[in-house]
Amino acid sequence: MLKMVLATVALVLATSAFAKEGNIIHDAEFEILEAQNGERWARDDDVIDAKLAEIRERNGGKPPNIIYILLDDLGFGDIGMPNLSVIRGYKTPVLDALAREGLSLQRMYTEPSCTPTRVAMMTGRHPVRTGTHEAKTSLAGDGLPAAEVTIAELLRDAGYNTSHVGKWHMGDIEEAFAHRQGFMHAEFPIHQQAQLALMHTEAERADFTRGLGTEGAAQQTFTLDRDFVPNASAMVFGVELRDGKLYEVEMEPGEQWSQKKYREMNERYQATALEQLQDLAKQDKPFFLNYWPLYPVTFARTEIDEFKTLNEGSWAESIVEVDAWIGQIVDEVDRLGIAENTIIVVMGDNGTMIEYMGLTGASDRIYRGGKGQHLEGGVRVNAFVRWPGVIEPGSNAEDILHVSDLYTTFARLGGAKDDIPKDRVIDGIDQTGVILLGETHGRRDYVFIYEGTDLKSVVKNKFKMHLAPPGQNPVIAAQFFDLYRDPREERPADSIKVGTWAGGQFAAMIKRHLGKRQKYPDREPTQGVPYTGIENLRPESAAMVDAFLAAQSRK
Amino acid sequence: MLKMVLATVALVLATSAFAKEGNIIHDAEFEILEAQNGERWARDDDVIDAKLAEIRERNGGKPPNIIYILLDDLGFGDIGMPNLSVIRGYKTPVLDALAREGLSLQRMYTEPSCTPTRVAMMTGRHPVRTGTHEAKTSLAGDGLPAAEVTIAELLRDAGYNTSHVGKWHMGDIEEAFAHRQGFMHAEFPIHQQAQLALMHTEAERADFTRGLGTEGAAQQTFTLDRDFVPNASAMVFGVELRDGKLYEVEMEPGEQWSQKKYREMNERYQATALEQLQDLAKQDKPFFLNYWPLYPVTFARTEIDEFKTLNEGSWAESIVEVDAWIGQIVDEVDRLGIAENTIIVVMGDNGTMIEYMGLTGASDRIYRGGKGQHLEGGVRVNAFVRWPGVIEPGSNAEDILHVSDLYTTFARLGGAKDDIPKDRVIDGIDQTGVILLGETHGRRDYVFIYEGTDLKSVVKNKFKMHLAPPGQNPVIAAQFFDLYRDPREERPADSIKVGTWAGGQFAAMIKRHLGKRQKYPDREPTQGVPYTGIENLRPESAAMVDAFLAAQSRK
Repeated sequence: MLKMVLATVALVLATSAFAKEGNIIHDAEFEILEAQNGERWARDDDVIDAKLAEIRERNGGKPPNIIYILLDDLGFGDIGMPNLSVIRGYKTPVLDALAREGLSLQRMYTEPSCTPTRVAMMTGRHPVRTGTHEAKTSLAGDGLPAAEVTIAELLRDAGYNTSHVGKWHMGDIEEAFAHRQGFMHAEFPIHQQAQLALMHTEAERADFTRGLGTEGAAQQTFTLDRDFVPNASAMVFGVELRDGKLYEVEMEPGEQWSQKKYREMNERYQATALEQLQDLAKQDKPFFLNYWPLYPVTFARTEIDEFKTLNEGSWAESIVEVDAWIGQIVDEVDRLGIAENTIIVVMGDNGTMIEYMGLTGASDRIYRGGKGQHLEGGVRVNAFVRWPGVIEPGSNAEDILHVSDLYTTFARLGGAKDDIPKDRVIDGIDQTGVILLGETHGRRDYVFIYEGTDLKSVVKNKFKMHLAPPGQNPVIAAQFFDLYRDPREERPADSIKVGTWAGGQFAAMIKRHLGKRQKYPDREPTQGVPYTGIENLRPESAAMVDAFLAAQSRK
Repeated sequence: MLKMVLATVALVLATSAFAKEGNIIHDAEFEILEAQNGERWARDDDVIDAKLAEIRERNGGKPPNIIYILLDDLGFGDIGMPNLSVIRGYKTPVLDALAREGLSLQRMYTEPSCTPTRVAMMTGRHPVRTGTHEAKTSLAGDGLPAAEVTIAELLRDAGYNTSHVGKWHMGDIEEAFAHRQGFMHAEFPIHQQAQLALMHTEAERADFTRGLGTEGAAQQTFTLDRDFVPNASAMVFGVELRDGKLYEVEMEPGEQWSQKKYREMNERYQATALEQLQDLAKQDKPFFLNYWPLYPVTFARTEIDEFKTLNEGSWAESIVEVDAWIGQIVDEVDRLGIAENTIIVVMGDNGTMIEYMGLTGASDRIYRGGKGQHLEGGVRVNAFVRWPGVIEPGSNAEDILHVSDLYTTFARLGGAKDDIPKDRVIDGIDQTGVILLGETHGRRDYVFIYEGTDLKSVVKNKFKMHLAPPGQNPVIAAQFFDLYRDPREERPADSIKVGTWAGGQFAAMIKRHLGKRQKYPDREPTQGVPYTGIENLRPESAAMVDAFLAAQSRK
């Protein structure tokens, strides 16, 4: 069955051709801002270009190295803000120091969950445009299309060495994998932590997961469909690129996944990230190191004394451990003597996983809501930028940023901005001004917030509109919030005070935004056969793919 | 009528005699901690005494000056925490700097509202013990009893010059006034900001207050009881001590109170605080300056450009202005060259006034609830201690403190600890260790939280018990919260995980605490005739007292 279907699927393994000529097509809202602020920005651009040239000259003509550390499920207030973590019983001294030495992006918006945020960063585009708006938690046979042009591809083509280590979670088909999307070195798990941290005996015993039946036959008594509950250990876990080919590394045929293996995977990625850093620093080329740890997501308490906390939760302990890991990276950058030509960005990918609040020691903070939600608690994260000698220590920026802006900003820093595709909408705005010139040099005052394909909220300046729920009057049932006065989005502004003017303004914004989507239509999700291109696929994994494809064909 | 009643009321204007011999009687819970930790504390005490002696020697034998700045209705996260204020559209640079230079008391508990917190600080006792558990908002004819021994009395008798400027709000009868409670200089309003900031035409026009009828006769159409809505301008506003006598200063007979007068009152107190500071610093004696601003409570937007904020709310703007005022005090301390022998404590008195959230620009933050409530949002505040050369800059303490601890701690710092009364329960714990030795040297792991006379919650270590509501089963309906994992008190801990052991432990704590209250019974509220001892009482104020006494006699 597998072979039969394989033959019918055309795999696109190289980046498609794309238009580089012309201007970047931004969303309509940006065009409005540009019309109003373009002249000031042009003057800023001259200053920025001069600064970048000066930095490059100081560093032997090399554009800056970029280390991007993306932490899973950490919302605003979880890290680098001692006042908020200490009263929840843990401390993140490394990230606190990073905040003191660098720039805190106080209004960094992500997408509400893992895959969308990662896609937005990699492609500079809202995931709804690329058909990757859903965070998959089981075998899906889809992923990031080859036709998207990632920041790794841009930087690689501009002369960077590119390396990805850690979580990927942008698909289980070959064209979506990191080494097919611009990374010259890649080590990553195919799936995410719902599989890695929850689908094993230990998580079941701790009552974090139910129904897997790893412990015995009791629940199989009336089982007629043996594929509904997957054989979790049949999934492909960690893969690595070796001499241009992809291999699964953790598992032998018949082996069971476990918490121990998950922990080892985490430790291995940390070790690899450090090794990669050392290797990359030696090269003549600049580098882009994309390190996306799987921790702090874990549901097992630590056994290491130095990571134990007053909080006593697995999540809090794991945050402290990851904080120490980031400390190793930062120290290594300093030790290697490359700090002044290396920009380090550390941030969360979406709000706290509120389903597991309390149990893991996680809790909500100033914003309401969490992972998966358009509320600020779902899309506001801590984001810190370190660049000694360039960034003023302890600075803050209240400018709005969206995670997709990193695409355009990194491209500019790496000298690759001209190569950004000109045949599609790029949502990411060039925010180099915020990094080099500081607060008030941002170029975005809006964010469109989707849950999947549904536009749920629009932020403009300090106001946020919650769109009316489906089936309700779009004018009457919309709500407006003042995010400075009501950060928890609990008390809609009087419609007479704000709605009278903001209703019409937001409606016009949305119309323009949807008009642009119509003009440059969204891509359909890219589908394929899971686990293609893995050299040593285990028999149980192949059988799982067969069952998946067979089930998929029954429609 | 007034004169007749006056003659029948015995006014106690001097501090009563009290027992100074023996040991301080602390609450039962402290005795348990002392039994377990007494030896360690005794060793700490030797170190603390040596440090205090050394500091005193460095400063010509003078014990430290104490400046205590208590800010109204500011909960945890409102000030000195840039990460939390900036995302709500304002900044408090002075208090941010104070936090960086000094010690942040991260688990400072107050009482849930103004009067109780102020009484607890002044007397070292839970207000329920002193009959002052209620925050009065109209003429009440009661207040802080002369028989209570305040920190001002202790310090005065130990050789300090004592001065009070600003809000008082501990009663409208003479024995309760600041100059009768230990302050050698006193300037204060009799009432609080519900009168000062809300009972005037401007607040009514802005729709913050309704029903006062300052604007005209329309609502008087069916009025039969002309005293139900008070003649707001008949209240006594600001009083000042001059040559041992008390005078009202703002108002001439027939004058109307206004926002302008309220603002002038605030500015006058700030000017007085600075003048007092200059005068006191010149004396041979050490000083205790008690400055309790009325701002940030105001419902009028600022007209001063430098205090305008992105938040655009009267409250946010006013916080920024008060921050600048505190900056003037701190700068003056430095300029006078007394910084190293002056401890400055700045804190809020209870949680945010949530009734006016949004309208004023106030909002809730990490904790749920606000003023008046036993929830953490009602009783957790920012508290900063500055003492250059003594306190490690940027330090934090996770130790639990209660505002009553300042009584005992200030007494020790001022060499007055031996004079603390020994004939009543003193709830305030000596926390000098936290200030001089830092985190983990606290001597309290519990707080009893009352709303009025009702014990609503008990905190022990990281756990908090919400007592069962009246009429419900005290065991089944009690709830337990893990404050590190659930700071918003929204997800009670599983009774099986925590309640199994904590239920019994908390019940025993409460039993011991109530046993002590029975052994040392609470004082009945102290009553008297309002506005006694004011030399220039306006006729309308005298008439208002007559009406109050007449209404009071009808029962």
